[in-house]
Amino acid sequence: MTDSPRYLTGDGDGIREFIDKFDVFLFDCDGVLWSGDHLFPGTNETLELLRSRGKQVVFVTNNSTKSRADYKKKLESLGIPSTTEEIFSSSYSASIYISRILKLPENKRKVFVLGETGIEQELRSENVPFIGGTDPAYRRDITPEDYQLIAAGDSSLIDPEVGVVLVGLDFHINYLKLALAFHYVRRGAVFLATNIDSTLPNSGTLFPGAGSVSAPLIMALGKEPVSLGKPNQAMMDAIEGKFKFDRSRACMVGDRANTDIRFGLEGKLGGTLGVLTGVSSKEDFETGPTRPLVYLDKLSDLLGSSES
Amino acid sequence: MTDSPRYLTGDGDGIREFIDKFDVFLFDCDGVLWSGDHLFPGTNETLELLRSRGKQVVFVTNNSTKSRADYKKKLESLGIPSTTEEIFSSSYSASIYISRILKLPENKRKVFVLGETGIEQELRSENVPFIGGTDPAYRRDITPEDYQLIAAGDSSLIDPEVGVVLVGLDFHINYLKLALAFHYVRRGAVFLATNIDSTLPNSGTLFPGAGSVSAPLIMALGKEPVSLGKPNQAMMDAIEGKFKFDRSRACMVGDRANTDIRFGLEGKLGGTLGVLTGVSSKEDFETGPTRPLVYLDKLSDLLGSSES
Repeated sequence: MTDSPRYLTGDGDGIREFIDKFDVFLFDCDGVLWSGDHLFPGTNETLELLRSRGKQVVFVTNNSTKSRADYKKKLESLGIPSTTEEIFSSSYSASIYISRILKLPENKRKVFVLGETGIEQELRSENVPFIGGTDPAYRRDITPEDYQLIAAGDSSLIDPEVGVVLVGLDFHINYLKLALAFHYVRRGAVFLATNIDSTLPNSGTLFPGAGSVSAPLIMALGKEPVSLGKPNQAMMDAIEGKFKFDRSRACMVGDRANTDIRFGLEGKLGGTLGVLTGVSSKEDFETGPTRPLVYLDKLSDLLGSSES
Repeated sequence: MTDSPRYLTGDGDGIREFIDKFDVFLFDCDGVLWSGDHLFPGTNETLELLRSRGKQVVFVTNNSTKSRADYKKKLESLGIPSTTEEIFSSSYSASIYISRILKLPENKRKVFVLGETGIEQELRSENVPFIGGTDPAYRRDITPEDYQLIAAGDSSLIDPEVGVVLVGLDFHINYLKLALAFHYVRRGAVFLATNIDSTLPNSGTLFPGAGSVSAPLIMALGKEPVSLGKPNQAMMDAIEGKFKFDRSRACMVGDRANTDIRFGLEGKLGGTLGVLTGVSSKEDFETGPTRPLVYLDKLSDLLGSSES
């Protein structure tokens, strides 16, 4: 159980003091900086304020549908200056895990992907071979013959070199892909997820998230995937490995208590900052099982420090 | 905890004695009488034996993709004589529940269906209005505009008269349908499932079942549906209402401990008979939490009673 968080909106001195405690700010993006394609007012000014005070800014996203390069474009399209190096996505985290951590047998190095282009791009950047993903050959109905071919492990549908199933948010989820992923895991493939967020913020409301793409497989297999996104600490380790920061001088900023705030707390960062522009409510932050150190109505309330 | 079940394969006297205890045999079908499109040898002879001894035979299936009429055709195509009245499917059970048990407000009577034609036919037979299902308009990718229209509750995508979301096995599951079902339930629709079987037997192996179509919604909503298939007793009540049998003289036959056998045990039937031609293993039956009264290697082992 954590203490009750401090509510800093309107508390200029509290905000200034809080900012001064940290060298690095890790930002969840959707629900914090923007929602869907809508940039929150004051986001850019807030990031500029932090940068002008010498803070390292890192964008940490569980959105697996975009690669780091895609994400940089998204940030640019919203007018947020950034570099690819400042961006950590769950698809990048998963690709690093597969290429550098998992010890796969020589003949089991291929990944069957349930997900979009972001995952494919990051797997390519780590030279990890894959099938599935956005390949149009998998965007079709299952046929009676498919059941028999899958059951027989026929190489026209079941690639014997697949040793990993990686599941992210797939806007083209279908029964054929689920059936194939299910059979690969039953045949021994490692079951990974880029992230297991239950929902995805868009247009000011929520939609089914990446976790709901893993859910059919979890239910059918009776088995949970290893998740490489927040709050999994493999992602924090990768970020720290790159930026070599002092965890006590780093703060995680997010809108979800059970992923973002938990990610910062379990990573033993010096601070966690919740904002109310996304999934979690005031009540979640005040009385839930994972409570931030401080919280604000919205990120741009941090600008209040310069007005006091 | 139940007692260890008796293994009757090869035990002619035990089998004859067991059969004599019952007037009604409720049969799960897939995994018991056949697998996919493969009729198990001896199925017809076994059903004939039971009928020749005056037993009432009922086919009870959680397969929601077929209506009772479809199921009768399936039985006929496999050479199994039957009448529609002998068939109980989870789609029929769900339709009865919606039309006769649920008290929906006048302007909230429409059902949004995630599933195949079996559900649609049974809803029609009970005069329940529905949308979704096999309508090709829903078999497409989600677009950026869809998110906004769904968020706004625009009537081009969100029908204000929908008061129920009914989820069965949908071989055409896609993100748009999941997003719509998610939003209907968030807007107050009753969340129902025809059944929640995690897997579906086919071609001698397993594939993702109806439960894995509910799973994304359960995860995204943080809410379980009311399931109208086995082992839910709403289905047993409907069967009993029709056949007016003495439960102590009825036996449930099935391959799944956690649905079929549980269905019979919770329904306080006189007997439960497990077979090893489907999902559950000898170990499941011998030591699992829901154990049948007796079990056989295969249904046709019942023919052993006439040989002894």
